[in-house]
Amino acid sequence: MQRQALGWRQAGSRVVLVPTMGALHDGHRSLISLARKKVKKDGVVVVSIYVNPVQFNDPQDLDNYPRTLSLDKKICREESVDIVFAPNNLYKKDESVEVKEDNLTTRLEGVHRPGHFTGVMTVVAKLFNLVLPDFSVFGEKDFQQVAVIRRMVRDMNYPISILVGPTLREVDGLAMSSRNVLLTGDLRGQATVLSRAIELSRQSIGSRSVYLKRRLRRFIEKQPDAQVDYIEFVDTINLNPIKTVNKGSRILLAAKIGPVRLIDNGLL
Amino acid sequence: MQRQALGWRQAGSRVVLVPTMGALHDGHRSLISLARKKVKKDGVVVVSIYVNPVQFNDPQDLDNYPRTLSLDKKICREESVDIVFAPNNLYKKDESVEVKEDNLTTRLEGVHRPGHFTGVMTVVAKLFNLVLPDFSVFGEKDFQQVAVIRRMVRDMNYPISILVGPTLREVDGLAMSSRNVLLTGDLRGQATVLSRAIELSRQSIGSRSVYLKRRLRRFIEKQPDAQVDYIEFVDTINLNPIKTVNKGSRILLAAKIGPVRLIDNGLL
Repeated sequence: MQRQALGWRQAGSRVVLVPTMGALHDGHRSLISLARKKVKKDGVVVVSIYVNPVQFNDPQDLDNYPRTLSLDKKICREESVDIVFAPNNLYKKDESVEVKEDNLTTRLEGVHRPGHFTGVMTVVAKLFNLVLPDFSVFGEKDFQQVAVIRRMVRDMNYPISILVGPTLREVDGLAMSSRNVLLTGDLRGQATVLSRAIELSRQSIGSRSVYLKRRLRRFIEKQPDAQVDYIEFVDTINLNPIKTVNKGSRILLAAKIGPVRLIDNGLL
Repeated sequence: MQRQALGWRQAGSRVVLVPTMGALHDGHRSLISLARKKVKKDGVVVVSIYVNPVQFNDPQDLDNYPRTLSLDKKICREESVDIVFAPNNLYKKDESVEVKEDNLTTRLEGVHRPGHFTGVMTVVAKLFNLVLPDFSVFGEKDFQQVAVIRRMVRDMNYPISILVGPTLREVDGLAMSSRNVLLTGDLRGQATVLSRAIELSRQSIGSRSVYLKRRLRRFIEKQPDAQVDYIEFVDTINLNPIKTVNKGSRILLAAKIGPVRLIDNGLL
């Protein structure tokens, strides 16, 4: 991969990387299409597909994560991706270096998934150095991840611009996610409660967060199999919690719907 | 710096980085000359000069570290360095990302200088991303540092080859170091005990490390102002301590000579 990338660099091609864990859906398609728009026809679009074990804190989640490589390749072909980079393994046995962040990652997902963001940053740093892109595209659905990656790029001085694609949703509002295929039976219906909670918060501008969070938690947990991990209203830039819900703040939330943990977020 | 580096990349120039903390001496000159040899006349030699605060565990050491920028520039001119990169500051106020290593850095300097290698790796990662070199040159005098940087390059997949220049010594054996100018009065003479201890260990192939270490510690601490931090015999590749001193193993040692902490090492 890196030899190829060094060749592109020498040829002066613009390169854009879309890092994924595969199980591609229309959300990924829109990220790929954003990538292509950025570098035009002459540029190189790389989609990496790698289910990164070190970012999974829950071994069951890693086991259950959907893997659909041949379908993924078909989708990449349809989207005119130039290179699918799907390594078997990106770690040596005696791997000992990690990228860590100690501010943005101490909250929200960072609390509920210890080690998750260290795993994400470490693998993204590797991918950046292997693919040597000028741009890299991430999905807004993982809002905190985007903030963490931007911070990594800023603090480590990577010569890479981060592009963010909007969350795509099913017609009933459920945010597209590879994990959605795991929502069997009526869990799929219950899962729409997350986007409905976001809608509800949009009708509550001016409320104090502490009350609104409590109300939304009750609203979500009315679903028989829903259990909230967190609901938080934050400043969009620094992810600091805010006391009063304003236009321009963002709601971030995570909940288990049966055995499937989902996250979602929205701008108010 | 990065804009310049992206220009070189586009022009297809080969770039080599010699990261330093300034206070350049003949040891640095030899690293610069190694760098020039590697990329020839057409390549670009960058010397970075930055006293990286985050790698100093001892604030006094940071305060006392010699700073001689105008002399350094003169030396770089003499050595036909293309660019001296001497930033005032490489850290933002709310910097929160670090590169960490949890194997090679848990020993030796890592024990005696907590946080040192995290600081080194973090700044070197920044410099790599700012200068985008094909090669980077380090001095063997900081033997553990070389191992740690190699590990970082390997694990993070940096597209950079690490070159190592041998330790240069004064005629009396003292390893060249920017800190040597701090050896006032008869401390300068006492400091030669480190290289003499290395010589002594070369006459002791086959000894058990535990005994030889004890003997060398006594030998060094015969100097009135010498206090050993550590003496260790290690495997050259993984820095693991070895039980019997062999040809091909390496002695690493650190000691304070009065207020000045010095390190040295040698192949047996």
